Formats: sequence, structure tokens, C-alpha cells
Amino acid sequence: MKKLDTPSVVQIGLIVRDAEKTASAYAEVFGIPKPEVVMIADDSFAKTDFRGKASTAKGKAAFFDLGPVQMELIEPIGAPSTWEEFLRMHGEGIHHIAFRTGDMGAARDFLASKGMETIQHGGWDGGQYAYVDCAKQLGTILELLHNDK
Amino acid sequence: MKKLDTPSVVQIGLIVRDAEKTASAYAEVFGIPKPEVVMIADDSFAKTDFRGKASTAKGKAAFFDLGPVQMELIEPIGAPSTWEEFLRMHGEGIHHIAFRTGDMGAARDFLASKGMETIQHGGWDGGQYAYVDCAKQLGTILELLHNDK
Repeated sequence: MKKLDTPSVVQIGLIVRDAEKTASAYAEVFGIPKPEVVMIADDSFAKTDFRGKASTAKGKAAFFDLGPVQMELIEPIGAPSTWEEFLRMHGEGIHHIAFRTGDMGAARDFLASKGMETIQHGGWDGGQYAYVDCAKQLGTILELLHNDK
Repeated sequence: MKKLDTPSVVQIGLIVRDAEKTASAYAEVFGIPKPEVVMIADDSFAKTDFRGKASTAKGKAAFFDLGPVQMELIEPIGAPSTWEEFLRMHGEGIHHIAFRTGDMGAARDFLASKGMETIQHGGWDGGQYAYVDCAKQLGTILELLHNDK
């Protein structure tokens, strides 16, 4: 791989202290339905790995569309995770922008060859994700998303 | 106004220390042309106002598309500005998400009625912008964009 699969950002990830409260505020300001708050990384298939070690950290999340891009609000639950680390170090704010890949291994290897290392990875029922620390090169964390089907 | 004009995010704004260097890194990772770095807020019509006072602060910026959303890299030049303040307080990272409005005054008043105050505003040859501090309610700064024509 000599570049990522696509330059199309599909999601903006925002770390918050209270997902319910922030979801209500977005719904009110933009006149959109209040999204449901769901648990993430809380199932056996999640297999969350943070900096090379298994982690039981979870999150409360709300997903909604801001036009062409999905917004994900994430309230960290437990530790360690990149979500908890970001909140502790930076406070609330935008944690990542996400891109789809057809080959998670090749995309991670490509970024690692440029000094951008995966700091957390895991999955959900239907896909896998990896957060890659590109703060030094790209000013933010990138998330790679892969759908199994 | 009882909600913003549109929930469609049109731009993600990233504060960086070196716009040239970061623009090159995005071009390389995503396989896109390296965007030109231009000066922003450097003309008489810019009329930059930061927290109620005129400011001569400027920025170096690079604009490019990540699929449906524009990415704006901003390297703060001089002070005071929300760009310089963000870099000093948070380091590099995503500073704002932007939305278009057809009525800048009404949009700013609507957000102010909810405790979200404009911290910087100004213009360019063809439009106006306002950065609204929604950190407490929405976890980030919103930018309102209005095209004059």
C-alpha cells in the first residue's frame, strides 16, 4: 500500500464527559432527533487492545449524521483506553477522524512505515477498528474502519 | 431562528505548528495533490475581531478536500486569535467544525441565547465567518460561514 484506500472522511469522533447531555445539545442546536446512547467495546468480540495489552475499558457512544459525515460522541468508561487518555490529557474535544479501508493490516503497516503507530484496536459485531497515532505528522488521531462483510 | 440552518458539516479545522509540513504529510498519506499554503486574515477586509477587540493576528492555511468535507490546516501567525489561543492551550489538534448559514446575525444570536458566544469573527473577499465557543455544550468550537453572494 502506497497511500490509504480513500481520502474520504466518514466520521468525526468527539470525546465528551457526558454522552447523554452532549447528544441532547447537538439535537437541540441542529434540530435533529436525539440519538440513542449505546455501549461500545463491552462485548467479548470487542477484544480491545490498548498499547499492546488487553483492556476492559468501554465507552458510552452516540452516533448521528451531520450531513455527509457521521459524528460519534464517546464518553470513556473505565481505563485504559485512548478515549480515557485523551479526556485526561486534553479535556473534551475532537479525538479522531475516520476512514474506511479494505485491508486493515496493509493500512496499519503503511502508516507504521511512516512512524504512525496503532495505539488501540478492537472490533464490533461486523467489523474492526484501529486508532493510529498520527498526532505528530497529521495533527490528530486517524481511525481505520473495516467492515467484515 | 430555532435551530441552525443545516446540520451538514462542511469543514474540519485543524490547528498546526507548520502548515507546509502538515500539508505535505496529508498529501503523502492520502495520495492527493499537496495544497497551496495561503495567508488568511491578512487583508484590510478581514477585520478580525477577537473577544471584542480588533486583532492583526493572521494565519497560514491550506485547504483540501477529504471526500465530502473540506480540511483546513491553520498555522497561527501573531496574536491574539482563537487559533493562537488553541495552540497554546491544547497543542495541535482539531479546533472547529464548520456549518453554512444564510443569516449570520440570527445564527450568532440563536447560539448566544444558549450560552454559546462568538469569540472571533471576520471576513474574506466574498464572505464572513464567526467562531462560536460551544466547548461546554458541544465539546468543540463551531464555525459559522456565510457567503456574501
